[in-house]
Amino acid sequence: MAQKPNIPKGTRDFSPIEMAKRNYIFNTIREVYALYGFQQIETPAMETLQTLMGKYGEEGDKLLFKVLNSGDCLSKVSDEELAERNALHLASKMCEKGLRYDLTVPFARYVVMHRDELQLPFKRYQIQPVWRADRPQKGRYREFYQCDADVVGSDSLLNEVELMQIVDTVFSRFGIRVQIKINNRKILTGIAEVIGAADKIVDITVAIDKLDKIGIDNVNEELRQDGLSDAQIEKLQPIISLTGSNDEKLNTIAGVLAESETGLKGVEETRYILETLKTIGLNNEIQLDLTLARGLNYYTGAIFEVKALDVQIGSITGGGRYDNLTGIFGMQGLSGVGISFGADRIYDVLNTLDLYPKDSINATQLLFINFGEKETAYCLPLVTKARQAGIRTEMFPDAAKMKKQMNYANAKQIPFVVLAGENEMNEGKVTLKNMITGEQQMVSGDELVTIVKA
Amino acid sequence: MAQKPNIPKGTRDFSPIEMAKRNYIFNTIREVYALYGFQQIETPAMETLQTLMGKYGEEGDKLLFKVLNSGDCLSKVSDEELAERNALHLASKMCEKGLRYDLTVPFARYVVMHRDELQLPFKRYQIQPVWRADRPQKGRYREFYQCDADVVGSDSLLNEVELMQIVDTVFSRFGIRVQIKINNRKILTGIAEVIGAADKIVDITVAIDKLDKIGIDNVNEELRQDGLSDAQIEKLQPIISLTGSNDEKLNTIAGVLAESETGLKGVEETRYILETLKTIGLNNEIQLDLTLARGLNYYTGAIFEVKALDVQIGSITGGGRYDNLTGIFGMQGLSGVGISFGADRIYDVLNTLDLYPKDSINATQLLFINFGEKETAYCLPLVTKARQAGIRTEMFPDAAKMKKQMNYANAKQIPFVVLAGENEMNEGKVTLKNMITGEQQMVSGDELVTIVKA
Repeated sequence: MAQKPNIPKGTRDFSPIEMAKRNYIFNTIREVYALYGFQQIETPAMETLQTLMGKYGEEGDKLLFKVLNSGDCLSKVSDEELAERNALHLASKMCEKGLRYDLTVPFARYVVMHRDELQLPFKRYQIQPVWRADRPQKGRYREFYQCDADVVGSDSLLNEVELMQIVDTVFSRFGIRVQIKINNRKILTGIAEVIGAADKIVDITVAIDKLDKIGIDNVNEELRQDGLSDAQIEKLQPIISLTGSNDEKLNTIAGVLAESETGLKGVEETRYILETLKTIGLNNEIQLDLTLARGLNYYTGAIFEVKALDVQIGSITGGGRYDNLTGIFGMQGLSGVGISFGADRIYDVLNTLDLYPKDSINATQLLFINFGEKETAYCLPLVTKARQAGIRTEMFPDAAKMKKQMNYANAKQIPFVVLAGENEMNEGKVTLKNMITGEQQMVSGDELVTIVKA
Repeated sequence: MAQKPNIPKGTRDFSPIEMAKRNYIFNTIREVYALYGFQQIETPAMETLQTLMGKYGEEGDKLLFKVLNSGDCLSKVSDEELAERNALHLASKMCEKGLRYDLTVPFARYVVMHRDELQLPFKRYQIQPVWRADRPQKGRYREFYQCDADVVGSDSLLNEVELMQIVDTVFSRFGIRVQIKINNRKILTGIAEVIGAADKIVDITVAIDKLDKIGIDNVNEELRQDGLSDAQIEKLQPIISLTGSNDEKLNTIAGVLAESETGLKGVEETRYILETLKTIGLNNEIQLDLTLARGLNYYTGAIFEVKALDVQIGSITGGGRYDNLTGIFGMQGLSGVGISFGADRIYDVLNTLDLYPKDSINATQLLFINFGEKETAYCLPLVTKARQAGIRTEMFPDAAKMKKQMNYANAKQIPFVVLAGENEMNEGKVTLKNMITGEQQMVSGDELVTIVKA
């Protein structure tokens, strides 16, 4: 019974050309991570629900894909529980495993489980798919890759510096011009402290973010509606209309935060990171941005985010420092800092700007046309010779019509084709056709290798 | 509330050293596949259960990991159905998706869904994990990688020849000596035909397989117990005690199968493959083995299997030709042939024989010791310089005790360490220590790069 096949919504097949592009992205990131001494690990696609549940908020728990226990999935469910029809409760009885939702929680679990083997600081990277039962929409998938690097077990700000260098190196290699934005959770905490409105910090950053669009008066009005007093708003003015170089901004903020120890710590950290990066020199601009507040409940120090300058798209990389990553699994006092490259968006940016290097598509370089059994026997040693020389080579397997074989070469964009019939066999040579110029020449096996490899 | 974390049984974490080794395996296979013109695709981890169910037999259906529908998983289940407590039936109502069980069915589904984009023959490879709810045991996991290459849309035996070359090339690159075994389903069918016992073909191959261990008399006795008549057993004698070169074996078989058109076709196919491979020349021996009967219900032509010669372990690679791969999805008449490398067993063989090349472990090459803020500032430009020269370099992030930092270098097996204190800073140089020889020398930045890269 034939069925028309499909794939689950929000998931994707990757064709050869898409895979070549994705591999180019992953390999570039991988190489840079390795250059900075990060080492790859992998964790299982399935984690126990005990590991996953409660780590991503109530919403996150709902978005976990749960895997039904194998064998009798009802063995732990009573008749009464069935009759109650409480889907969430039943799921917890029928499922012990779920699909990985991100790479951070599995990493924390990994560090705790392998604590005795690890040499701290542990610099690991991980490039694997994650799954979320989100409503699929343009650019949002239920299966997508994350490319994370984290350092755990070191409080040094040199780690933040290195991560910024990694971001700069990766996007320089891609040829994507970016702006790196940096902020610090401690500065935001300081702001809330000095105006006495710790609960309003999100409203404040949202309002500040609108300055360019709606102007200072409207920003202040919005803050008033958020419940801030005139005195509080007054105190915020230097921060709302913050301008100038990073240094100037830091000086202004330090003034406002004079009374907040935490706030000043944030200023000092940011200053160290920026100063150190200045001595190293980045290709891309790094800018202090107080409106940057990603994962506010999660990060405890530096926060960063990367935007492409030449394509309108959301953040393409982000990260920050978090304290106590492994505390949820009973291992206290381990600080971490990490970044995550958004492979799907980087893919879109590279496509839009047409930045893939030609040789990133590792396709066939040479095709031998198949004229029949005798000609094939003549060609096979040459096919082997070409491959031994490292040339990606195919022999068309069937003695199909010439047109079909040439169509195959064109569709796969194979740059060189070999034709060898009676004539060539008599001469002990082959005809090599350059599919781009159309040029044909009779060559020996050695010449063939030299020309195709050139 | 701290919980002691663990991972689902039958799954694994891969540490940096394990990942480096696995990547060496995958990259070697990937490179060879590309050399032969195969292109990579990826398919989603989850497939619809409609795609997966009924493709792996009743046992396979049970071993599928099913994913609970997100949202209200009970919405399609009536009270009556709940009360029945039929786990399999309920699972079918609560789950629409399952985890990929192998790479072949998703590939067939891919070919059918993308038929209009594909240029036939389509040579694809795929390296992804698969999941099976098997009882875990030594060497058998619930999550493991498959590394498949298949050609669909070509009946040519040149494809079989190429796959054998790929096997030979891959294991030559690994440095693993192997024996490639080949058989043909049509020969087995022919044997069953000529003795009039089509239903006994599995029993016959099992019995033949025991010849070396139990001797011809016991083999014949076993065949008798399997229900074969004396006349049938008599006719099988030349095949049971089949000896000699592949050519001699083929001649003997051709004699026995003189009356079977299918059988002779199998002999002819095998002869063509072996003859062609002889003209090309393989590094490893290929041997005709009639007891090879893997996936008997699946393969329709050539069958092959690879065994390591220097390690006692099961088959490390296998494959064969199957007709009508895509028929189950309504696309008829597409023949395919493929191989699958067993990454986990190859990993064990490489470990046992200690065959990993040193440079396959892409770890850090150079570590800068951290003596404090001033020294760090002095070193950072050199760290950057080393990385720009392609040296995998780390700066220890904290000014920790010397012993801790040197332990770190030793644990990560970093071959070079840089020490730069007052002295070195005054001279504008650094001390480079070779961690293997213990040798130390004062060098400039340029010398540093030259020595480490040498």
